[in-house]
Amino acid sequence: MIAETVHLDGHIVDSLTLSKVLDLILLHGGTYEITHFKIGATRTDASHAEIVVRAETVENLEAILHLIGQHGATRPTHEAELEPAPADGVFPPGFYSTTNLETSVRVRGKWIPVENTEMDCGIVVHEIYDVIRARCVPIHRIKKGERVVTGDRGVKVSPLPPRDPTGVFGFMSSEVSSERPKELVVAAVAQGMREARGAGRKVLFVGGPAIIHTGAGRHLESMIAGGWIDVLFAGNALATHDIEQALYGTSLGVKLLTGAPVMHGHEHHLRAINTIRAAGGIRPAVEKGILNAGVMHACVQHGVDYVLAGSIRDDGPLPDVMTDSVAAQDAMRERVRGVGIAVMVATTLHSVATGNLLPASVRTICVDSDADTVIKLMDRGTHQAFGLVTDCEFFLKALVAQLSGVIV
Amino acid sequence: MIAETVHLDGHIVDSLTLSKVLDLILLHGGTYEITHFKIGATRTDASHAEIVVRAETVENLEAILHLIGQHGATRPTHEAELEPAPADGVFPPGFYSTTNLETSVRVRGKWIPVENTEMDCGIVVHEIYDVIRARCVPIHRIKKGERVVTGDRGVKVSPLPPRDPTGVFGFMSSEVSSERPKELVVAAVAQGMREARGAGRKVLFVGGPAIIHTGAGRHLESMIAGGWIDVLFAGNALATHDIEQALYGTSLGVKLLTGAPVMHGHEHHLRAINTIRAAGGIRPAVEKGILNAGVMHACVQHGVDYVLAGSIRDDGPLPDVMTDSVAAQDAMRERVRGVGIAVMVATTLHSVATGNLLPASVRTICVDSDADTVIKLMDRGTHQAFGLVTDCEFFLKALVAQLSGVIV
Amino acid sequence: MIAETVHLDGHIVDSLTLSKVLDLILLHGGTYEITHFKIGATRTDASHAEIVVRAETVENLEAILHLIGQHGATRPTHEAELEPAPADGVFPPGFYSTTNLETSVRVRGKWIPVENTEMDCGIVVHEIYDVIRARCVPIHRIKKGERVVTGDRGVKVSPLPPRDPTGVFGFMSSEVSSERPKELVVAAVAQGMREARGAGRKVLFVGGPAIIHTGAGRHLESMIAGGWIDVLFAGNALATHDIEQALYGTSLGVKLLTGAPVMHGHEHHLRAINTIRAAGGIRPAVEKGILNAGVMHACVQHGVDYVLAGSIRDDGPLPDVMTDSVAAQDAMRERVRGVGIAVMVATTLHSVATGNLLPASVRTICVDSDADTVIKLMDRGTHQAFGLVTDCEFFLKALVAQLSGVIV
Amino acid sequence: MIAETVHLDGHIVDSLTLSKVLDLILLHGGTYEITHFKIGATRTDASHAEIVVRAETVENLEAILHLIGQHGATRPTHEAELEPAPADGVFPPGFYSTTNLETSVRVRGKWIPVENTEMDCGIVVHEIYDVIRARCVPIHRIKKGERVVTGDRGVKVSPLPPRDPTGVFGFMSSEVSSERPKELVVAAVAQGMREARGAGRKVLFVGGPAIIHTGAGRHLESMIAGGWIDVLFAGNALATHDIEQALYGTSLGVKLLTGAPVMHGHEHHLRAINTIRAAGGIRPAVEKGILNAGVMHACVQHGVDYVLAGSIRDDGPLPDVMTDSVAAQDAMRERVRGVGIAVMVATTLHSVATGNLLPASVRTICVDSDADTVIKLMDRGTHQAFGLVTDCEFFLKALVAQLSGVIV
Repeated sequence: MIAETVHLDGHIVDSLTLSKVLDLILLHGGTYEITHFKIGATRTDASHAEIVVRAETVENLEAILHLIGQHGATRPTHEAELEPAPADGVFPPGFYSTTNLETSVRVRGKWIPVENTEMDCGIVVHEIYDVIRARCVPIHRIKKGERVVTGDRGVKVSPLPPRDPTGVFGFMSSEVSSERPKELVVAAVAQGMREARGAGRKVLFVGGPAIIHTGAGRHLESMIAGGWIDVLFAGNALATHDIEQALYGTSLGVKLLTGAPVMHGHEHHLRAINTIRAAGGIRPAVEKGILNAGVMHACVQHGVDYVLAGSIRDDGPLPDVMTDSVAAQDAMRERVRGVGIAVMVATTLHSVATGNLLPASVRTICVDSDADTVIKLMDRGTHQAFGLVTDCEFFLKALVAQLSGVIV
Repeated sequence: MIAETVHLDGHIVDSLTLSKVLDLILLHGGTYEITHFKIGATRTDASHAEIVVRAETVENLEAILHLIGQHGATRPTHEAELEPAPADGVFPPGFYSTTNLETSVRVRGKWIPVENTEMDCGIVVHEIYDVIRARCVPIHRIKKGERVVTGDRGVKVSPLPPRDPTGVFGFMSSEVSSERPKELVVAAVAQGMREARGAGRKVLFVGGPAIIHTGAGRHLESMIAGGWIDVLFAGNALATHDIEQALYGTSLGVKLLTGAPVMHGHEHHLRAINTIRAAGGIRPAVEKGILNAGVMHACVQHGVDYVLAGSIRDDGPLPDVMTDSVAAQDAMRERVRGVGIAVMVATTLHSVATGNLLPASVRTICVDSDADTVIKLMDRGTHQAFGLVTDCEFFLKALVAQLSGVIV
Repeated sequence: MIAETVHLDGHIVDSLTLSKVLDLILLHGGTYEITHFKIGATRTDASHAEIVVRAETVENLEAILHLIGQHGATRPTHEAELEPAPADGVFPPGFYSTTNLETSVRVRGKWIPVENTEMDCGIVVHEIYDVIRARCVPIHRIKKGERVVTGDRGVKVSPLPPRDPTGVFGFMSSEVSSERPKELVVAAVAQGMREARGAGRKVLFVGGPAIIHTGAGRHLESMIAGGWIDVLFAGNALATHDIEQALYGTSLGVKLLTGAPVMHGHEHHLRAINTIRAAGGIRPAVEKGILNAGVMHACVQHGVDYVLAGSIRDDGPLPDVMTDSVAAQDAMRERVRGVGIAVMVATTLHSVATGNLLPASVRTICVDSDADTVIKLMDRGTHQAFGLVTDCEFFLKALVAQLSGVIV
Repeated sequence: MIAETVHLDGHIVDSLTLSKVLDLILLHGGTYEITHFKIGATRTDASHAEIVVRAETVENLEAILHLIGQHGATRPTHEAELEPAPADGVFPPGFYSTTNLETSVRVRGKWIPVENTEMDCGIVVHEIYDVIRARCVPIHRIKKGERVVTGDRGVKVSPLPPRDPTGVFGFMSSEVSSERPKELVVAAVAQGMREARGAGRKVLFVGGPAIIHTGAGRHLESMIAGGWIDVLFAGNALATHDIEQALYGTSLGVKLLTGAPVMHGHEHHLRAINTIRAAGGIRPAVEKGILNAGVMHACVQHGVDYVLAGSIRDDGPLPDVMTDSVAAQDAMRERVRGVGIAVMVATTLHSVATGNLLPASVRTICVDSDADTVIKLMDRGTHQAFGLVTDCEFFLKALVAQLSGVIV
């Protein structure tokens, strides 16, 4: 049996961290002894635990320490180990794989905060003279020779603080139930958007084409016109059907004013694409007076930054669509910096893709008529997401009402 | 090969009836010859076809004739065959099993319309002096010796007319898609309710407890107060949580004003039941001033007739609940007479049960957040149902707005 | 500020109990001081905490103590308070509402275990000479004058032990995901059934009609024939379609051998019901040689006890169906005594109804193609249920293979 | 009123084509007169109708004629009108937008069959000396100056023949129900695969990562090893988790043999990607002996052609992934030529993308645990798809058993 002592600090009881850490040790064949324990007397007081972890082999012990390190259990201070990347786009074996939680690495005796928090990346450390910086780097962007953290000595992860029960999302658990009062959630989302803006952070909207099909495009348009959205992530389909709607009054060939399919309607989306291709893109189409309404028009008019990411089911696509998925991901990656709240509506693909890029500290609301989308988002690591199983049309209508202070 | 000639009249081309009839003949091993065919030149003109059906055996021919008879193909006029029921609650073997379409039987040379149209029943014929009446009778209500139609000679079924594309539900197909504009559907439901009332027919509302859990009880309450609902079908759960909400402000223990679970909240429904049991029922509780708000209170205040049908998952139940499922079904059966539109919200059990009792001519809207409920309703024979996959809270809010002329 | 000291014992850290208790105190406006804390050094060691709870008012403190009592926090020993029921079917106000966890009440200085553990009941205490017994009683069965526990002094609830990670269900969390290897779950269910039988406990099967529609009836039949099932809970639909299948080879009118709808098929279920009604019931039909195959036939042949509970969507129903929901619930209630494992397949109604009656200590597996059923079951208090989102046909086929040792 | 006479030939009654055509004329404000009608006397006889269509304006008439042309109503023979594409990637305005049905165009007095049938494309006509060819071209591949069909004169669409009720998929409707016997469907899929191979056509398999997560990868692997699959379409996720499984025995970090999450498991997929990136791709990894098992290994070993299409939610990605969505779509487009049957399992994105590329004549089976995927596929035009709502693990296991003749 070999042993090592770790420390665990913070709200480790009510955030369930202590329970998880002990559970993990036992689950993976280790044993523990709690040599010191000081429990906070009130919610605001932090607790502190000192735990001796024992395991049969060095490998087993290292594995356990790594795992509980992801929940904040810190080992006696070590320097982070760094190895050069063997080739462009390849990490050294044994690279440390990041979570979406705030992380620091120990270099030259100091804890260096890791920038660009993102899950499933490596950590690269740069030293220029006496400035040391560390940042998350996705695998495809690593360059040969860059120094990458390996193992998990000298890496410290800060668990999320427990949710504030008096805060705007306090009453929300992460439960995905369709049987809850939804107006309250909408009010909380509106309040969350206001708080994000008040804190000087961006509001990110991620949307799918059902927003247009259900006739809710006008609500999204009015949010954009009202200055509520800083960045829009979507795909070719949302933009195409929005433009189809602006040019022909239909979406997927169904007239939004009457709900009836119209003649030639199923061709409209392709004609809309052809029109924008002929114009050279969305912005030129707006400038030439060809495109005069809709969500994309509003984005151009109000300077909202957007990323339209391509997918293999796209028709066309529109010239504005980034067809390379890695380039599109990088464009999204760049724009999530500074985001304070992400509102994801009616899209599994773009929601999961965005969730992959967000730090756990960004408030994330995922709205879908299918509970599965929300479950997938959380299964893939975006545990902070709050799911609302409902209709995008009614959700957006109610959100606009809340934002404009008109609460029915 | 033996043969018989049938006639097919009406909008048999655009209602797809002719196609179905020919398909059925071939599918079941028969052959056909179209000896006369006159197709209507416009939508309002009826068509007429005379078809010789041939099959190998008498049994096979009879089976085919029976089947296509359900789509309106009438055989040369025969008298209906009648046999006495062998015992209470038992039909004679070979009894004719009804559809939910308008039906007539041939008795003493006259076509007698069958009353109380309902699927999966038998037809009983009564003759008192020279008055002949026929009606659908569910199996549990047949009395020994009553004369029941057997076979399908002398039975004529009238297919539904094709939907009127200019009518209020004209644009709706029976498709169950969550990707359609819903405000239009809500407007159509409101219009349908107005038309039913204008025609002197009743509005039936069938609801599940999610209406209360999501905070939409107040919308249902205001529809009742506004006189929009004549009959309510629900279960112990809707009534219990509604009363819980009136007494404690919670539903399933969750405070509706804040969305937060409250202390002792999970016990509230049982305490609500106990309170009503102690008072002797919902009406006494209203009269004694114990129950002052909510859906059930509104029903009592505004004289809305309700059936609360019991189920094995009930706690309590409330004294008003009819715990015998056959008695509850009979109570519902009695109240569907005269209904012009049925609005079913957030309940699979009560929706399917009600669908079983409705003639196909009653407009039926089924609203659920899960497409499965609607699919089940149609799979079980309520083909006229139009499904709307959406949130009950937002649906009811929008419906109330439409009914009160406040359209956002 | 008034205060009371409570004790918390057992696996309170790794079962998350301590975290929950502290969370509840704070959430409801109280404060705590941990005056003594001894944490178990290994998984098998129990921990012990002594906590002073403070609140502003007596009512607030009582409410908090009640709530944390449900997680095992015991107050200084008091006698349980007992009040007579004011009328048949009515509890005294302030009655203690039960959980589905093992519970004891303090009467005459002794802890009396409460029999017939069931959630949402009251506790009745009987004293005959010096024998004291306590049992859970559902509200409809309370008799005027019986002594019912009120408040929660003198009531002790034992939290479930943490799941044994080396046990057969050890690897299962309560997560409801369709993206997990299912063969393993099937193997665990088979093993759980073996263990229940080995421990002399009953296996309860709860099933819906989709078992028959999908052609999986033969698998259930073979489990019954193999002696694997002691009790069957179902409704009119499962039995009717099973008998339809035995008599006509169809279910819902679809031929199971070919998947094709057959002529007159949609009438078969009503003819099956009529046949059994004429015979006087299922058992007489088996004895007269009318019913020779299927699930219900197997139950009669192999002496499996069944409850067919009625519902308002039933056709007929079969004479064996208990149409009164309260009587059916009582019949089920009686039969869950001694059950060691409950396997629920493809039915929301019967699963939730059964879940309401089961103590939390009964292993419960809920199989449905829709995650919603499982979520509903857990939302309504059956937290011990393990959900498997899959197809009932393939599940039962695999389960039969596992039980017979033929593992593909 | 202006008029034009159209002809309608084939199984226009039982395929419902006549009904649809008449319906469309009326729905869009036209009127009709059936001047000649000869109905086929048996299922094998074709029918013939001559219909005068009238409308108020030339535009209205053209619109109606276009619409009914998509159902096979042919106008008096005209030459197709051709216009040059104004720029690369842009069709001339008024371009004819294709369906996925077999199509011919009239050029120089001859009907030229259109090659590469695909929906939502344009038709390009090439004439080299006296060889005339026509083919579907997606918008992004059109070159400036290529001659594109505009309007719909001279375009003839052949409706699908009615399904053969005696064929292997005869009993299947396009209904999406989870309550049907599934073994029969599996048998039909196996038979369909045999028939496709017998006819010298390719079998296309389209799969999502849940195949791997549920432990069904081994079944897919054995189908590949058995020579049953010619082409595989998937994404980075399926390949990554398959390789994770081969290298670490886990998928999404869950050990497939035990169902339990393993230490470091959530990092395995990224380490798997890193390993393959270091090796230079899947094939090099197989050749170097690094990758020795799994689906991708089997593809390399057995020469199965695969397209791994990128998406914005990919980690890595693997070097084999085509990250450009247009290039990936073109790679898929090329490989659907010659496909006789497409089996799509557990992926919405890849199923819809593939459905977009397939002619309507390719048998298409879509298997998903969520009915929504299948509904989406059909909503987007792949009407020929047959949906099976079930579990991919059990489906593939049963399919392998069927293919190897081991039918349980």
